[in-house]
Amino acid sequence: MSEKKVFAGVDLGGTKILIVLMDEGGNKLREAETATKASEGADAVIGRIVALLQQLIGPGDRLASIGVATAGTLNADEGIVALASNLGWKDVPLGKKLEESFGVPTSLENDANAAAYGEWAVGAGKGSQDCVYITVSTGIGAGIVSGGKLLRGRDNSAGELGHITLDWNGPKCPCGNVGCVELYASGTAIGRAGQRLAEERPDEAKALLSLAAGEPITSRHISAAAAAGDEAALALLSEAGRALGTGLVSIIHMANPEVIVLGGGASAIGEPLLAPMRKAIADLGIASMADGVRIIAPELGKEAGAIGAALLVANG
Amino acid sequence: MSEKKVFAGVDLGGTKILIVLMDEGGNKLREAETATKASEGADAVIGRIVALLQQLIGPGDRLASIGVATAGTLNADEGIVALASNLGWKDVPLGKKLEESFGVPTSLENDANAAAYGEWAVGAGKGSQDCVYITVSTGIGAGIVSGGKLLRGRDNSAGELGHITLDWNGPKCPCGNVGCVELYASGTAIGRAGQRLAEERPDEAKALLSLAAGEPITSRHISAAAAAGDEAALALLSEAGRALGTGLVSIIHMANPEVIVLGGGASAIGEPLLAPMRKAIADLGIASMADGVRIIAPELGKEAGAIGAALLVANG
Repeated sequence: MSEKKVFAGVDLGGTKILIVLMDEGGNKLREAETATKASEGADAVIGRIVALLQQLIGPGDRLASIGVATAGTLNADEGIVALASNLGWKDVPLGKKLEESFGVPTSLENDANAAAYGEWAVGAGKGSQDCVYITVSTGIGAGIVSGGKLLRGRDNSAGELGHITLDWNGPKCPCGNVGCVELYASGTAIGRAGQRLAEERPDEAKALLSLAAGEPITSRHISAAAAAGDEAALALLSEAGRALGTGLVSIIHMANPEVIVLGGGASAIGEPLLAPMRKAIADLGIASMADGVRIIAPELGKEAGAIGAALLVANG
Repeated sequence: MSEKKVFAGVDLGGTKILIVLMDEGGNKLREAETATKASEGADAVIGRIVALLQQLIGPGDRLASIGVATAGTLNADEGIVALASNLGWKDVPLGKKLEESFGVPTSLENDANAAAYGEWAVGAGKGSQDCVYITVSTGIGAGIVSGGKLLRGRDNSAGELGHITLDWNGPKCPCGNVGCVELYASGTAIGRAGQRLAEERPDEAKALLSLAAGEPITSRHISAAAAAGDEAALALLSEAGRALGTGLVSIIHMANPEVIVLGGGASAIGEPLLAPMRKAIADLGIASMADGVRIIAPELGKEAGAIGAALLVANG
């Protein structure tokens, strides 16, 4: 029986493990997921990755490599997860353990960078050479592909686009920097701005307070109120959209992309956020660089990180 | 007689043309320069490039390629200078004309990006994989090498690090954006801040006014006053240094470099600018990315752009 070369991609998150198997053509063959159960410790989590991947490999498959996308600080050269607060891991030799189990090359990737590569290689950015991926949800994750190559940087940490500065005299960000884009444009930031409005000017926040029904105001309430035409909610999203657009201008000036793949809750909120974002880019971007940049939705869904991790190691 | 393969690099500036010849090992063999005399028109300028390069090529040399570093908007694929305000050029087919004259592949590069590549390949950044080049003088020029590859972007314009935002509610920049790093950290910006101080609080600016002797205050006066211990000058440079450092934090978060080559007048001003810059990076940068980034002076001098342009096309 002839064997088929397959490439595994693992997305190791704080709550679940998602594994995909890809073929040589970049097509997804199979996928599976399981709970991470990080509290059981690193060995148990690695055991679950090994078991799930073994299950996924069929009798005709010859596993060629494993790519793992994960959050935290990586020592990718050594295959070590140096520090991952979502897993409670410190100096875990994940790469080595998977190599021992499967006898194939294994590499670790920053999860947002892996997703960026996946969306570029076989998703929304396919066919472009210069693609920025940015996903706006609780926080902001991002990655940059330039000239068909993932921007990794010294520590595989390049592309922290949520933590570039919008206001150098602004508030402190948990990352250590001040006035980061994430403080103004993330879902968390939008909810916080709504909550602040409700406390300072409850009259203007009536619709939001009614939707929240006693709970703290979140970006979901604001999005729903904006969809119903509430002016306060529209103003909050407009300010967040301007923040996101102004941040993207810095990114456009730095990376000069052809395509920006914008995912996460931002696309779900839609025009109340996206129209001011596009206006900021049109108003502020250097025309020769900002004109014609395509801003599009991602295509790979929650598998983006696992697919990108598989393809990054497969494509060398 | 055996021939020696040589690679030409041309730095085409608004006031002068500088040409270098490099060998296969990346060593500079010869260089020459002449005035641009842009007012005589594009054909005359191209004629001067051709004549100077012909002079420079020796009897034993076999020219292999030409790289041209120049400012302005390029259509590099077609070898066209689309718009160069310093030359008064619009849609000049410079690449094609040089190819016709010498019969070798010719490519156009953004001048700051070419200098970045030169400093990375054979200058201060040599041996690193991830190197940011930034030169602070009248304006701010910059380029990024990531994973040993120049970040070009869609229009060969990537690396406009002077035009990333420090204050999204700040003043308008001539580039179209607001609150750009260049508005706070360039030599022009430092001089402007000194001039403003002199107008608003002349008492504090006594030393500066005395040095300027009736002329507008420039960064040179401020640098000289700071060297003599003048408090107002030190405060102005400290603020500019904090701006530069905060801008570099955004760049570190985006590109995760190993080395930052910092050139231009900034290094000449020295500690009054550089100490606050380093403090901002230490205070604000994500520790795992900012720690250990080496900030060093360039090594190639004014030939950086020409050398980089030669090597970019030589190295394919």
